[in-house]
Amino acid sequence: MSYRLSELVDRFGGEWLGSDVVVSQVASLENADSSHISFLSNPKYRKQLSTSRAGAIIVEASLRDAITVPRIVCANPYLYFAKVSSLLNPRGRPAPGIHPSAVIHSSAVVDASAHIGPHVSIGEGVVVGADCILHPGVQLAAYVQLGSGCELHANVVIYQDCILGNRVTLHSGAVIGADGFGLAWDADHWFKIPQIGRVLIGDDVEIGASTTVDRGALNDTIIEEGAKLDNQIQIGHNVVIGAHSALAGCVGVAGSTRIGRYCTFGGSAMILGHLDIADKVNVMAGTLVGKSIRQAGTYTGWYPVQKHEDWLTNASHLRHLDALAKRVKELEIKIAQLDTQGEHNKEGDKP
Amino acid sequence: MSYRLSELVDRFGGEWLGSDVVVSQVASLENADSSHISFLSNPKYRKQLSTSRAGAIIVEASLRDAITVPRIVCANPYLYFAKVSSLLNPRGRPAPGIHPSAVIHSSAVVDASAHIGPHVSIGEGVVVGADCILHPGVQLAAYVQLGSGCELHANVVIYQDCILGNRVTLHSGAVIGADGFGLAWDADHWFKIPQIGRVLIGDDVEIGASTTVDRGALNDTIIEEGAKLDNQIQIGHNVVIGAHSALAGCVGVAGSTRIGRYCTFGGSAMILGHLDIADKVNVMAGTLVGKSIRQAGTYTGWYPVQKHEDWLTNASHLRHLDALAKRVKELEIKIAQLDTQGEHNKEGDKP
Amino acid sequence: MSYRLSELVDRFGGEWLGSDVVVSQVASLENADSSHISFLSNPKYRKQLSTSRAGAIIVEASLRDAITVPRIVCANPYLYFAKVSSLLNPRGRPAPGIHPSAVIHSSAVVDASAHIGPHVSIGEGVVVGADCILHPGVQLAAYVQLGSGCELHANVVIYQDCILGNRVTLHSGAVIGADGFGLAWDADHWFKIPQIGRVLIGDDVEIGASTTVDRGALNDTIIEEGAKLDNQIQIGHNVVIGAHSALAGCVGVAGSTRIGRYCTFGGSAMILGHLDIADKVNVMAGTLVGKSIRQAGTYTGWYPVQKHEDWLTNASHLRHLDALAKRVKELEIKIAQLDTQGEHNKEGDKP
Repeated sequence: MSYRLSELVDRFGGEWLGSDVVVSQVASLENADSSHISFLSNPKYRKQLSTSRAGAIIVEASLRDAITVPRIVCANPYLYFAKVSSLLNPRGRPAPGIHPSAVIHSSAVVDASAHIGPHVSIGEGVVVGADCILHPGVQLAAYVQLGSGCELHANVVIYQDCILGNRVTLHSGAVIGADGFGLAWDADHWFKIPQIGRVLIGDDVEIGASTTVDRGALNDTIIEEGAKLDNQIQIGHNVVIGAHSALAGCVGVAGSTRIGRYCTFGGSAMILGHLDIADKVNVMAGTLVGKSIRQAGTYTGWYPVQKHEDWLTNASHLRHLDALAKRVKELEIKIAQLDTQGEHNKEGDKP
Repeated sequence: MSYRLSELVDRFGGEWLGSDVVVSQVASLENADSSHISFLSNPKYRKQLSTSRAGAIIVEASLRDAITVPRIVCANPYLYFAKVSSLLNPRGRPAPGIHPSAVIHSSAVVDASAHIGPHVSIGEGVVVGADCILHPGVQLAAYVQLGSGCELHANVVIYQDCILGNRVTLHSGAVIGADGFGLAWDADHWFKIPQIGRVLIGDDVEIGASTTVDRGALNDTIIEEGAKLDNQIQIGHNVVIGAHSALAGCVGVAGSTRIGRYCTFGGSAMILGHLDIADKVNVMAGTLVGKSIRQAGTYTGWYPVQKHEDWLTNASHLRHLDALAKRVKELEIKIAQLDTQGEHNKEGDKP
Repeated sequence: MSYRLSELVDRFGGEWLGSDVVVSQVASLENADSSHISFLSNPKYRKQLSTSRAGAIIVEASLRDAITVPRIVCANPYLYFAKVSSLLNPRGRPAPGIHPSAVIHSSAVVDASAHIGPHVSIGEGVVVGADCILHPGVQLAAYVQLGSGCELHANVVIYQDCILGNRVTLHSGAVIGADGFGLAWDADHWFKIPQIGRVLIGDDVEIGASTTVDRGALNDTIIEEGAKLDNQIQIGHNVVIGAHSALAGCVGVAGSTRIGRYCTFGGSAMILGHLDIADKVNVMAGTLVGKSIRQAGTYTGWYPVQKHEDWLTNASHLRHLDALAKRVKELEIKIAQLDTQGEHNKEGDKP
């Protein structure tokens, strides 16, 4: 599979300059050879432009005439590159059919175009839509529903009654619909609260490896359309993740929190329970959000790294920060008094 | 399955008022209809009392006469609701028997009342007690022992020699008994220390999805009876989690730490290794515990979130907090000197 | 299996004193009996020396004559103990062969000495080297290559094209080669960037339970030889982990970061993306690294835990730390003015 620059421009827009070379794969500026098309979007890699051996490069307008290598000029080189890469690397699709080692309940409805791999189990009343791919070891409990075009990687588990839209991708080790952490204290032990809600996942959601999304306690846990969850994320019961929000690895969202649309969360951010996060909120990596955020914007809170001995010295003051603030307040009062006295003294000096 | 309020009160105590209506399911105040019984425990939802269409509501004594809807009045509405929900939502129980695709070692002893799902493997010398449920893809290595009434969800893994009590629930992706992180530095590489301890899990423990509990290095790792672990938790080797302690999602407990009974840990709290945590300690979410805690109480330590630009400005001072404290100390000394001089000056003024 | 102290010294060096007793297992000082050999390396356990009933103890030179129990004196008791434990606890090795329930693609090459457990699937073109052990439920996608002596615990998943060296150990729930988190924003939704790199894992790497290592976006993700990763770790796309670096549980490394050789990272440390971390850097637990670290050394940054009410009081000042610093600066200016005035006043006092 290979394309001329002119063919790419026909498909995706932009302008091509230099020779109308043929490219067959994408690569980074550093590793590209003449068969590759590369791109520049992060200015910190700009110096690699001159040394790259890429056959062609996707750049923004400001670099249109700064280089002579065959190039495509466009508004958003990163997105353009993504589309070219997608064209050159179509998703593989295994043949339809059910592997003989799969165990399918007689009441389940599996579309004939679906691929069901080895060691899969599909429970009572499950529905698997057209063109779904279930890799080996996927386990679907009773009454799970998958729309069309879903891909579930090896060893994904979905608990009973959960519903996925179309073109949902779940990576290996993801667990959808396990019980939420619902406990009531009963004199001398915890009493478990049945978790009778479901997980509802919208169209075009992608969920990373070993990410867990708990079923609702009463209402459902909802991941709206187009949301993207990276690996090792924990989503508590009754949470709502708004459409097109993106959560990086190791994020935790505690129960009953509602996250708006078009939000982003950096790696290992932690959002406490029963909060409301507005649309278009960006929370930076490592930040713990302990109260609702009502306004779009970027929010941060983490302790900056230092040499260990410097941290020891500095951080020890945090345990006494209130005392320090009070000492400053006291100094301000004293200074004000001294100032007044000074004025008096000066006045007193006056003959 | 449905019950009159009077029947619920006969079972669980409390007082019913209004009509003796029939309810068949629990629901939140917001989503309930006339067939549902709801509850109010969190005062922040109190305004929903007036708009809820619930058939009945569980409330505490202070609200006994504040509403007219059929109601149950009791000391702890949340616990009461949990018990009603448990009654209305009994745990499903698949039929006893071993699925033909399961692979059971000839020396294993599986109780006839147990349910063994598809693609399960059970190793040499394993014992599976009465009424256990092993969902699809569960893998039990040699000499694992399960008490009675355990439920292991799909794709749970237990390594060799680990022992579970009765009524233990493990959610999908949980891994019990993998090697602890034991390494000794040997000139130019890490030398692995065999992890020869086991994991021992007490009665009525529940462990969440993708939680990992490492086997002991020499002694055993122990999760005592009634402890509850949420999802994505990491328990290091030789750790002891005391009875009835509850750990929320993404918590980490490093090796050889001993946690007392009746403790609670908020989401993504991190406890360093070789520490002792007393009984009835509550550690708030996002807190790193770096030293032993000898006294019951609530402990916290995390950096509060701010608008990003405010954080930038404020957090930059943390790297110089010791210098700031020293400057305050110096100011105090100077003020004291000025104060004394002022007195002298004033005295000097005296005729 | 048992050894005299003299036999151990013949193998591993050091000096033995007291009787030449026979030991058959290792144990902690606290739990040992006369058949056990124990060790002392952490001085905080020294008081256990006098009460231990161990048959023999491994100690360092300074304790050579402080105890009378049979003992081995050596430079590094912890490493010595590790080697003795390794001798007394050889890794079990299941018989070669392929379980009939395993599904192996006809084009795969599985060495005859390998053990392939139940419910394993092995895809097209996969190569499994000599003496590999694949526990139940392992799923290898197309073109995966394993060197010799690898052990993959139950339910490990490796995506297509990833390559492991020799003697690599992967614990249960580990996922190697899932898609990295590569997204480009396209007007009103995220556009997925194909992740066409692989994961390359060097010799003698060990990866913990539920740890995820994403495949590269363009270039490969690389875990160099001898690196050790604990449980629940997330490694983003294009990351390089240098040889013999060790990462404790719950660490996250975001995309395209390069970590040097011989580094250590404490539990739940988080390293942001596109950074360079030098060789021999130690990052303490709970620390977020937000910029490159160019120098070997130990680095820390976390908020210390306090009683909750003390934290509330102290942490509230963090949101105003810049204001506090400015107030201190202002005080310094005023004091300097007062000081000058004082001098003037004093001078003014002079007759």
